[in-house]
Amino acid sequence: MSETRLHHKFLTMAVVLLAGCAATPAVPPASAPATPVPPPSVLRGTGDLGLIIERATGSVQIVEHSGDSALGRVTGLGDLSHAAAVFSRDGRYAYVFGRDGGLTKIDLLTRVIVKRVIQAGNSIGGAISTDGRIVAAQNYEPGGVKLFDADTLELLSEVSTKDEATGTASKVVGLADLPGNRFAFSLFEAGAIWVMDASDPRAPKVTQYPNIGKQPYDGLGSMNGRYYIAGLYGEDGLALLDLWKPEQGVRRILNGYGRGADPLPVYKMPHLRGWAVSDGRAFFPAIGHNSVVVADTQTWKEVTQVPVAGQPVFAMVSPDGRRVWVNFAFPNNDTVQVIDVPTLAVVQTMKPCKGVLHFEFAPRGEEVWLSCRDENRVEVYDTQTFVRKTTLPADSPSGIFFTWRAARIGL
Amino acid sequence: MSETRLHHKFLTMAVVLLAGCAATPAVPPASAPATPVPPPSVLRGTGDLGLIIERATGSVQIVEHSGDSALGRVTGLGDLSHAAAVFSRDGRYAYVFGRDGGLTKIDLLTRVIVKRVIQAGNSIGGAISTDGRIVAAQNYEPGGVKLFDADTLELLSEVSTKDEATGTASKVVGLADLPGNRFAFSLFEAGAIWVMDASDPRAPKVTQYPNIGKQPYDGLGSMNGRYYIAGLYGEDGLALLDLWKPEQGVRRILNGYGRGADPLPVYKMPHLRGWAVSDGRAFFPAIGHNSVVVADTQTWKEVTQVPVAGQPVFAMVSPDGRRVWVNFAFPNNDTVQVIDVPTLAVVQTMKPCKGVLHFEFAPRGEEVWLSCRDENRVEVYDTQTFVRKTTLPADSPSGIFFTWRAARIGL
Repeated sequence: MSETRLHHKFLTMAVVLLAGCAATPAVPPASAPATPVPPPSVLRGTGDLGLIIERATGSVQIVEHSGDSALGRVTGLGDLSHAAAVFSRDGRYAYVFGRDGGLTKIDLLTRVIVKRVIQAGNSIGGAISTDGRIVAAQNYEPGGVKLFDADTLELLSEVSTKDEATGTASKVVGLADLPGNRFAFSLFEAGAIWVMDASDPRAPKVTQYPNIGKQPYDGLGSMNGRYYIAGLYGEDGLALLDLWKPEQGVRRILNGYGRGADPLPVYKMPHLRGWAVSDGRAFFPAIGHNSVVVADTQTWKEVTQVPVAGQPVFAMVSPDGRRVWVNFAFPNNDTVQVIDVPTLAVVQTMKPCKGVLHFEFAPRGEEVWLSCRDENRVEVYDTQTFVRKTTLPADSPSGIFFTWRAARIGL
Repeated sequence: MSETRLHHKFLTMAVVLLAGCAATPAVPPASAPATPVPPPSVLRGTGDLGLIIERATGSVQIVEHSGDSALGRVTGLGDLSHAAAVFSRDGRYAYVFGRDGGLTKIDLLTRVIVKRVIQAGNSIGGAISTDGRIVAAQNYEPGGVKLFDADTLELLSEVSTKDEATGTASKVVGLADLPGNRFAFSLFEAGAIWVMDASDPRAPKVTQYPNIGKQPYDGLGSMNGRYYIAGLYGEDGLALLDLWKPEQGVRRILNGYGRGADPLPVYKMPHLRGWAVSDGRAFFPAIGHNSVVVADTQTWKEVTQVPVAGQPVFAMVSPDGRRVWVNFAFPNNDTVQVIDVPTLAVVQTMKPCKGVLHFEFAPRGEEVWLSCRDENRVEVYDTQTFVRKTTLPADSPSGIFFTWRAARIGL
């Protein structure tokens, strides 16, 4: 590292520390995790808790969004360069899925690791069953889905995605929970959607929908559990399964939504998630285009494309349904834009910091937390006024996950 | 009480106690509330907690829906003959609104009353602001709305509904939270909807919508915060305010929905609530008719009326959006029916017990709790199979409220 870059880094750290002193309690250093004997302060509600993935250090910060403060840090979670989390149905425990195949159960109250298993070679996420008793992990390597007991992390069963004819085990993407202890997921190489009924988690039943299109790269379950939609990397469209009418099978929607424009190089894979639906409209990040695609959820036809500042990564509807917040791939990952749902116009463009990787809303949407990886901080904004409320120092933050997800379908 | 009725009551109690022994831990008697010194067991998540109103004894039971058990009882809440509850944003505290104007803050973890104020002469409910800092109470006597600090229950301000010309203070009904720390409510005598911006809770600003129709009796805020709808007792229709287009004012919808049929005597006022919306359809209990009215949420025209077993009281969509559960007024309050949303057909009719006053879903909808007032118990059913999972003894149970409401708009 050159002297100039070092100097810059120290300056950045000083700014971060100053910002932290002004508004938030100090975060305990990584070497001082929460003590195993719970202090009185751990007796508290869990509805306003959450965690911030610190991707470079394999740690998470435990935070709360009533006072917008950090409560502590848990270390030793392995490779979190791409990580996601789900929560136990009581909101006390987080299950963190790491890139290295690690699955770590954290107690948010006492801030300790309860259990950690290495369950695969390469994993990018998971889901939790409707009843909260089964944690499902989707794996790149060796492919497939594994089901674990949410209490003990005991392995209950494994569904292989290996094609016996070709010997290829498909990477699993877009795992989403569905009502009735079911899960839906997509097979990247096989171009398929599978729906798993895990009512008996030791003997799950799988229904396969083959030939859905080339290279599904992510999927979403709608918040009412009705639709599962996979984005296709290998073609210009999405694949939709109506779980209220499964006999109709999977159909293609928004075919050719990139029509007429030359696709740009793709710098970062966009994400799909169930909360990108509001007021009869679904919002999808286009791939290789600087636009958000808007579809009608009755007809699943394209309504319009909203031009935005870069290639969108996340397009998420705020819980009040009024606005869609969008972040972008490099080189526009210093920008966040806000789309007004009734007018479909961009009403706000912000440049909060460099490297906005992810954002998370408070459960009723009054504030949003933005992770600023390249500036080692998390910014909290008032969603009504777009005014910054506070700043929290964090080490290369990426995903931010709040416990209210435990009470939602499709997250 | 006659000997026969006494005998019947003892028999019922024996059955209840037996049922309780089999499946649930004993509920502490009313004389032994949770000790002020928290036992270790109170260190737990709050996402699966809730309470059951015991209407005849002025008590509430604290329950949890991961193991479907009772944790304890809190007494001394006054007249709970019509009561409702909201929750703090961290899920730890409940605010119970009693018929006698009492507002009681309960700590669900330590199971003690933190604070109790008598804030009016007659009240039927309240709401909590988006940011969780303001508790609003809607009052019958002396009318109006009062705003309280959620931490201390300090009175912050009061909005009077007294008409200076006539001297009449309207009863307030249908209070619902809206995004941006706003509230909407209806004035029974004045026939008006008011929207209050409580961003500054010591000086709230009110926008009045007069002449909305005769005798609004309840209201709902849609879960995305867009619509406020008041049911009209004095005429045959509902009043709708689109808060995304407030300049359009209030308009009448479903006018004459009881056309052609002779209205029956009304035994119990039905309730409206925001979760009666699914898949572009809104479900309303008809007044004085044995039907559930279905409206299209784009046009707000009537789609159909679903004939049901009695006069509906609550028509609530399960969190997975697939089904609408309905209970009924006397003499059909031993019955519960379930409507399938895509086909609008009644797919299940159950007679779980006498006096089904209310029901509440687990946050992701896998189970539902039914209060059986006349049989002193609460029944827990699997919503997929309609099989009873367990029974909990309770003293004249009415409302059941789970903490997941804290993370929702419009409840």
